[in-house]
Amino acid sequence: MSELYLGIDMGGTLIKMAVVDSKANVVEETSVYTDIKASPKTVIKNIADIFKKFKNYDKVKSIGVGIAGDVDYKKGLVRFSPNLPKWKNIQLKKELEKLTKKTVYVDNDANTASIGAFWLDIKNKADNMVCVTLGTGVGGGIIINKKLYRGSSGTAGEIGHITVEAKGRKCNCGNSGCSETYIGVKHIIKEAVNILKTKKSKYIMKLAENNVKNITPKLLSQAALKGDIVANHVWNNVGEKLGILLASLINIFNPDNIVLCGGISNAGKLLMIPAKKEIKARAFKTSANACKIVISKYTSKLGVVGAAMLVKN
Amino acid sequence: MSELYLGIDMGGTLIKMAVVDSKANVVEETSVYTDIKASPKTVIKNIADIFKKFKNYDKVKSIGVGIAGDVDYKKGLVRFSPNLPKWKNIQLKKELEKLTKKTVYVDNDANTASIGAFWLDIKNKADNMVCVTLGTGVGGGIIINKKLYRGSSGTAGEIGHITVEAKGRKCNCGNSGCSETYIGVKHIIKEAVNILKTKKSKYIMKLAENNVKNITPKLLSQAALKGDIVANHVWNNVGEKLGILLASLINIFNPDNIVLCGGISNAGKLLMIPAKKEIKARAFKTSANACKIVISKYTSKLGVVGAAMLVKN
Repeated sequence: MSELYLGIDMGGTLIKMAVVDSKANVVEETSVYTDIKASPKTVIKNIADIFKKFKNYDKVKSIGVGIAGDVDYKKGLVRFSPNLPKWKNIQLKKELEKLTKKTVYVDNDANTASIGAFWLDIKNKADNMVCVTLGTGVGGGIIINKKLYRGSSGTAGEIGHITVEAKGRKCNCGNSGCSETYIGVKHIIKEAVNILKTKKSKYIMKLAENNVKNITPKLLSQAALKGDIVANHVWNNVGEKLGILLASLINIFNPDNIVLCGGISNAGKLLMIPAKKEIKARAFKTSANACKIVISKYTSKLGVVGAAMLVKN
Repeated sequence: MSELYLGIDMGGTLIKMAVVDSKANVVEETSVYTDIKASPKTVIKNIADIFKKFKNYDKVKSIGVGIAGDVDYKKGLVRFSPNLPKWKNIQLKKELEKLTKKTVYVDNDANTASIGAFWLDIKNKADNMVCVTLGTGVGGGIIINKKLYRGSSGTAGEIGHITVEAKGRKCNCGNSGCSETYIGVKHIIKEAVNILKTKKSKYIMKLAENNVKNITPKLLSQAALKGDIVANHVWNNVGEKLGILLASLINIFNPDNIVLCGGISNAGKLLMIPAKKEIKARAFKTSANACKIVISKYTSKLGVVGAAMLVKN
């Protein structure tokens, strides 16, 4: 059997663990609920106890961890993680290496998701790929010559923070008009709620049991697929803004592939029909024709598999 | 003496030629006026006759050519060059190799300028650099791990065609709101002319001898430096839009350096004061702090030196 690698995806709800082979096939996997109240040291000890029970653990050559937040990948230091409030300046690499005597790699979850998409969706076949993670935040990762591109201080790939409207909406990052302010989850819901103040929707309020607080992107997708005009309008706008972003990425990177992942990518054609229209109108033809856009089929596994494959980056 | 390389910059007005050493120092150079009426074959033969007279020609290991337009760098084919109307589907690499028996590389002038900036302005010291060429068109090149990044079909780096205003001005490329439509030469002049319809300027019309057709970016710089309000307003707007573009590039690439070159970059602080303000407001701090922005000191030599250094890319 080829070499094996262990991946850990430290989420705010679940911690996923998997052993994968050198082609990123999952050999064994498990997950546990995240204990956000426990000390990081306890959490690390507990997950090590769990993954050491993997049948193939002895064959594992290295361990990779993906975690949201500010991570120093060189030191394997978690400076801050929004999902895990107790995790501040945690020497994750050091701690795990002490417990396992194996080499440990740590990176942020947008990077591990991008590596995961490169292996699972693209099967390692592209030279250049851009991954766009569509969730509460809009992030991503850049694969160049089959390797993750990190930039000069490890902070490249802030794809959600390309300005698409010079005087647009204020973004959490400090900028205005970032694409995140149009296609991030909160903003999608906010837009729907705003439109509902003046326009009637046939399905949204029914599905939301007459409470706008119950509106989610998933609910908006359901309503749109039933023909709801408001919901379709919202997705059209989101798809349009996504298309503008993707056209810029195509013009900049001329990649073989762009992979879309994360919750919002589940909207599928609701997103892609308007997005592709913008790409056709906006991107350079040669580059647009060379780029295949893929919606990830593996969103829930990208993080854990990408973490395992950090060793190759 | 180390290896030597010959560079040729095929401009619409001048053809520049230079022999450089392995550190991109110019050893010998010359230039001739471009004969745009002559057949490409004659032009190629003539320049070969000229550069063969270089004292160091026998020591030249390879030849590189930079030319504006649509170039297939793999084949060394010039499909089309806007400055040289007779140049259509010219096998430049093949022709020159036949005449010289040396390996020839051909690429477009934005790529050669970027390589030139990497060697002349950055002295090969950055890992990751973005070059922004500011002229009639706004283009550029991306250096990653010290090498030019070309993308999957050789068309990466269309930096001037990142959308900065979703519903902005119509661009020649087909897109709307490209940064080129705000910071390209024609648009800068157009904006000045537009403002002059309603506002009086103290210096612009005097310098332009009362003819708006005489307005150039250089003239606008001169007027602005004298304190002209309209000219300063124009440069503020251009610098602001440039800053938005640079902030996006910083967020995407987290580069060690951005080099600005081309005619418009001569506006210097008129451009950089407003641009830096936008970068401070818009870019991620870690990435902005890691990135040194440089105005090229070698604009007129970037093309010819970068062409010579194509061999290293």
